[in-house]
Amino acid sequence: MISDILSCPMPISNHKTIQLAHGAGGLLSMNLINEVFLPYFSNESLNRLDDFALLYSDNKKLAFTTDSYVVDPIFFPGGDIGELAIYGTVNDLSMSGGVPLWISVSFIIEEGFPIDDLKIIAQSMKRASDRSNVRIVTGDTKVVPRGACDKIFINTSGIAKVSQKYSISGYNIKAGDQIILSGTIADHGMAVMTSRNNLSFESEICSDLSPLNDLVQCILNICPEVHAFRDPTRGGIGVTLNEFARQSQVGIVIRDNKIPIHENVRGACEVLGIDPYFVANEGKLIAVVPNMYSEKVLDAMRDHPLGKDSAIIGEVVSNHPSTVVITTLLGVKQILDIPAGDQLPRIC
Amino acid sequence: MISDILSCPMPISNHKTIQLAHGAGGLLSMNLINEVFLPYFSNESLNRLDDFALLYSDNKKLAFTTDSYVVDPIFFPGGDIGELAIYGTVNDLSMSGGVPLWISVSFIIEEGFPIDDLKIIAQSMKRASDRSNVRIVTGDTKVVPRGACDKIFINTSGIAKVSQKYSISGYNIKAGDQIILSGTIADHGMAVMTSRNNLSFESEICSDLSPLNDLVQCILNICPEVHAFRDPTRGGIGVTLNEFARQSQVGIVIRDNKIPIHENVRGACEVLGIDPYFVANEGKLIAVVPNMYSEKVLDAMRDHPLGKDSAIIGEVVSNHPSTVVITTLLGVKQILDIPAGDQLPRIC
Repeated sequence: MISDILSCPMPISNHKTIQLAHGAGGLLSMNLINEVFLPYFSNESLNRLDDFALLYSDNKKLAFTTDSYVVDPIFFPGGDIGELAIYGTVNDLSMSGGVPLWISVSFIIEEGFPIDDLKIIAQSMKRASDRSNVRIVTGDTKVVPRGACDKIFINTSGIAKVSQKYSISGYNIKAGDQIILSGTIADHGMAVMTSRNNLSFESEICSDLSPLNDLVQCILNICPEVHAFRDPTRGGIGVTLNEFARQSQVGIVIRDNKIPIHENVRGACEVLGIDPYFVANEGKLIAVVPNMYSEKVLDAMRDHPLGKDSAIIGEVVSNHPSTVVITTLLGVKQILDIPAGDQLPRIC
Repeated sequence: MISDILSCPMPISNHKTIQLAHGAGGLLSMNLINEVFLPYFSNESLNRLDDFALLYSDNKKLAFTTDSYVVDPIFFPGGDIGELAIYGTVNDLSMSGGVPLWISVSFIIEEGFPIDDLKIIAQSMKRASDRSNVRIVTGDTKVVPRGACDKIFINTSGIAKVSQKYSISGYNIKAGDQIILSGTIADHGMAVMTSRNNLSFESEICSDLSPLNDLVQCILNICPEVHAFRDPTRGGIGVTLNEFARQSQVGIVIRDNKIPIHENVRGACEVLGIDPYFVANEGKLIAVVPNMYSEKVLDAMRDHPLGKDSAIIGEVVSNHPSTVVITTLLGVKQILDIPAGDQLPRIC
């Protein structure tokens, strides 16, 4: 039932137990990080809350990242948990401007899980790592009794080499910068959700799951001065844009009619009352570039197979710092704020 | 009931579904790796099956490792899942001879988990990372609905810098080498097991959970030519010694009466019919060193707070390659083979 699908615990600010919304990438996730983790773990790298840590070692720069994948269902239109685990980490690393090289893989598997399914997942991971030119160099497998986990969870961590010449971070954004999105939004989240709940729409919604490392290098070849990259996964482009505005203390203005979205995805979102701005993508990036480079970067992105629907969706302004404003076709301006709650749990 | 505690699916070689024993570090774990993962993931780093991957980058050597922690219960005598997750990865990295520097932390948390418990775990992780001089630089949090995981699972991955002058690996062991164990065996596994099942013995069994990075550097200062290090966690010293014998195609002879073990741990193992050789440790290492260094290394280890019960427990021989033989006080020789099955699931 639709009402079941959309039910979520109403977030209040002072929970004593973990809520689904604490893992959704919205305000409650931020609260959890700020109130539980940062007081203990605080350090310069972690506090930046980029999707990767930059590590400096003997004048070399590395990016390091980690993600656990708990997607339900584990096989969905356009991919499976294995590919998602490889591309997800490749993409987080790529957002540093670096070249992803090495990946670790750690499985938590429920007793009774079919070995044939595990082989399919391993094969997907192999294909995904080959496609993104990374090597799976170390791993771990844990098995837990029936009922102690739901089928299979996969953690991947990864390391990229980053050129010294780049300085790419959510903190580097400046007024006047243009915001370029590499394609349609909400495909991954809506593919997982409709597949989980056996909802059928006119045409099947397919995840956009793809490795972004090559597109990133293609952009950097045109414009080494990219200010920020981010792949809008959990929380969608809405959370990413808000993070950018807060990290760099700038305002962001987005033009609603410029945001690419597939018709079937838009339709599914409308029917289900879901805001596509806050739905996960797994093969898209947002690049924030100086104005003078924006048209050249846009052309290069459109020439790339993973960027053919790229669009300049907005710009960075000096007024209303930390706030994202969206303008509709009719000129109405609305604040695009981060929701506290959880539209779609276990999407990645 | 004891019979419940010790029950485990009898392993046969041709399973269609994942068994608990596939995660136990014994023969079935090896089968899973060899038959499901290596056919797809095979590469030079991974195939070595050390506890870490060595990565070469611009004439620098890094070690990289990952582990997911699913221990039950999450709080046990001598530690909790948070400390375990930090020390476990610090120790795997240390076995490369390197200095652990950076750690990633990824949580999978069950909806409804008490935030106060999460704070205790975060505090433990902070204490453990301070004690081992590593920085938690990046992280991830996922929340899954009630029943989709058992309380909390933690993945840590880590990076160490390794000096070019060391060549430490299970493949470097030579006949004549001495085998030194840094202290008593089976403390961690028996602490978790007795605590999980509320078994009480005369004195409480306490986990040996500790960071081994300092002990490792102390040994390397005396003997830069260490041939192999390993921390005998899942599978205990029995699996570690067998891995060494197979990797270097050597024989290993162990003197049973030299193996340090606490009396209460020995007693608990006897009562429960558990072989302490195959029970996990979380603060012990085995060093394999050339004969000429062995007494000096032993002295240095005994001077270290985490090595005061160190003992030379055996030696490497050229006959019976790939086989570990144990000699009892009465001179009886037995082969110490890896069990297929699972004595103790969810110990780490």
